[in-house]
Amino acid sequence: MKNQSVFDSRIKEGITISIDTLGGDNGEGVIIRGLELIRRQFPTVSYILHGNKDILLKHLNHYPELKKISILNHAKNAVLMTQKPSDALRNGRGTSMFSCIESVKNCEADAAVSCGNTGALMLMSLVKLRKISGVNRPAIAVLWPSKNKSGFNIVLDAGADVKADTKDLLKYAIMGVTYAQNGFNLSKPRVGLLNVGTEENKGSKDLFDANEEIRKSSKNKNFEYVGFVEGTDLPSNLVDVIVTDGFTGNIALKTGEGTAKLIGDFVNESFKKNVLSKISSIFAIKPLKRLKERMDPRRVNGGVLLGLNGLVVKSHGNADHVGIEAAVKLAIRLTTNNFSQNLSSNLKNAENTKK
Amino acid sequence: MKNQSVFDSRIKEGITISIDTLGGDNGEGVIIRGLELIRRQFPTVSYILHGNKDILLKHLNHYPELKKISILNHAKNAVLMTQKPSDALRNGRGTSMFSCIESVKNCEADAAVSCGNTGALMLMSLVKLRKISGVNRPAIAVLWPSKNKSGFNIVLDAGADVKADTKDLLKYAIMGVTYAQNGFNLSKPRVGLLNVGTEENKGSKDLFDANEEIRKSSKNKNFEYVGFVEGTDLPSNLVDVIVTDGFTGNIALKTGEGTAKLIGDFVNESFKKNVLSKISSIFAIKPLKRLKERMDPRRVNGGVLLGLNGLVVKSHGNADHVGIEAAVKLAIRLTTNNFSQNLSSNLKNAENTKK
Repeated sequence: MKNQSVFDSRIKEGITISIDTLGGDNGEGVIIRGLELIRRQFPTVSYILHGNKDILLKHLNHYPELKKISILNHAKNAVLMTQKPSDALRNGRGTSMFSCIESVKNCEADAAVSCGNTGALMLMSLVKLRKISGVNRPAIAVLWPSKNKSGFNIVLDAGADVKADTKDLLKYAIMGVTYAQNGFNLSKPRVGLLNVGTEENKGSKDLFDANEEIRKSSKNKNFEYVGFVEGTDLPSNLVDVIVTDGFTGNIALKTGEGTAKLIGDFVNESFKKNVLSKISSIFAIKPLKRLKERMDPRRVNGGVLLGLNGLVVKSHGNADHVGIEAAVKLAIRLTTNNFSQNLSSNLKNAENTKK
Repeated sequence: MKNQSVFDSRIKEGITISIDTLGGDNGEGVIIRGLELIRRQFPTVSYILHGNKDILLKHLNHYPELKKISILNHAKNAVLMTQKPSDALRNGRGTSMFSCIESVKNCEADAAVSCGNTGALMLMSLVKLRKISGVNRPAIAVLWPSKNKSGFNIVLDAGADVKADTKDLLKYAIMGVTYAQNGFNLSKPRVGLLNVGTEENKGSKDLFDANEEIRKSSKNKNFEYVGFVEGTDLPSNLVDVIVTDGFTGNIALKTGEGTAKLIGDFVNESFKKNVLSKISSIFAIKPLKRLKERMDPRRVNGGVLLGLNGLVVKSHGNADHVGIEAAVKLAIRLTTNNFSQNLSSNLKNAENTKK
């Protein structure tokens, strides 16, 4: 992601990031390696690491500089990927996820990063951090590979809630715009509302009304509203922020993932079909590698929970050190740009304009 | 599609297919070429061609055998791709789409095939052919490239209606099963219900109830219900038929299309980046061609409008002669297997079981 580096040269001093080290599929080692990558660029950022102290120490001993700027907080239990959110919340105390969020709640850290169970992370964050005044349904914003100069678009809600009414969709637009501005330096993001057609008379009443509300709200505001967009536009360069309800967003996200995986498998099978195609694959290695890099989910890793009193970044469960680096850097960038404060004030402004 | 040919050796005698020749992006020529391909395999099928008589004659003069089995029905106007369905219906009389459907309504043809505006085709078909007794919302079923042996899964509703309640979803399951049996020789299709997770407690009340109803209905019926599936499962080999509401189905369909196009563009750019990668692309031509064939939407062309008194197949607007061949063959296959009659009786059975 070329322009992700725009911000990387200047960051706020004294940032602390709280990390849930038990959530991911790949263990503590990749997290520590990812943090070491960041330390070399931003030595002033410090960390609170929640998880198994012994294992963390074992890994940190390889990186003495990182060890110096890390506080370890022992947590016995992990939230399981298969655990129901309500169950995870009930049994939350003592888990690394719980204490990771608590560090933000207690103002010990500026942001929380976890690779764990998304539903559990959303529910625990909601209960611990509470919703920002005026937000009814928080949302998860994800980065979607696209033809935009940045290489991705922002899509929300990706599945925090299965429903969204007109007011929620308007707030998603405002939250997405603030995120695009503070996370990716887009001064006037273009916003689209996901629908089954681009005609003004399509879709449900909530969508129809949200179309009007977002359009009204875009006047005198620092974003451009492009109207309804379709599923084909998710990876396009027509928009920067795409607003939808969490049910549709989640289905779209997983459909995109499934399609990309299907094509990836077909590519592999095609190049393995016979001796000749195996030889061809040697010649094709470079271009195929370039393609893989471009589609690499690790480079755009990091979903953000929006609408809470505190910043929580969700990393992919199977993120490796590059993925962890991307997710934690996103948290650093948003903290540097006072994202949480800007989000509250933009939402408040929208409320006041309506009155 | 390997197993599409299973049926191709035996077809019902005396089938007539009604074709809207004005709807597509590629003109009458590709339609006539597609029909000629079929004539060589099934010389007993005849056609009613709706459109510009002069242009059709010009093309048919190249294929005298096809000309003999084609009736021309002059239609002055085409329904435009950009036309609103309601507007197309109001001004329908005199269009090739209108008379194409009318041929089925009047029992002159066994099925209608059009490459035109989907919304207009659905609305006109609905008004002319009327819904099958017991169906509240008709659906569009599409073929989705997948890892199944057949090469695709059936997804419905792809966008006939933006809503679907519990009863509608149950009927989509039954319609999808009948379509899989009569169109693709699957004796016991596996059915999944699209949701944001596979846990039984996920999703809206309608989905929750539909999950119960479809499960109940699968007992003593000739299909297997696999429960909730996710967006990632759309191209999987876990299911044959995926049931969803038309809003979600349409978004998923277009998201899949958009993702595939994005990756295709990235592949092209990757292989064009520099002289070396241009040379690589020469070696990669065969495997890439194989991949393209496997993803080729033309080979799985044909959406089917389900729940109407009469068979209507929707071909892609930009279908070429291979796409037209696939769509018309699908209509022939479904007619051969008495699809419309089976659909009515399966829906009736489901109603009676519930009483």
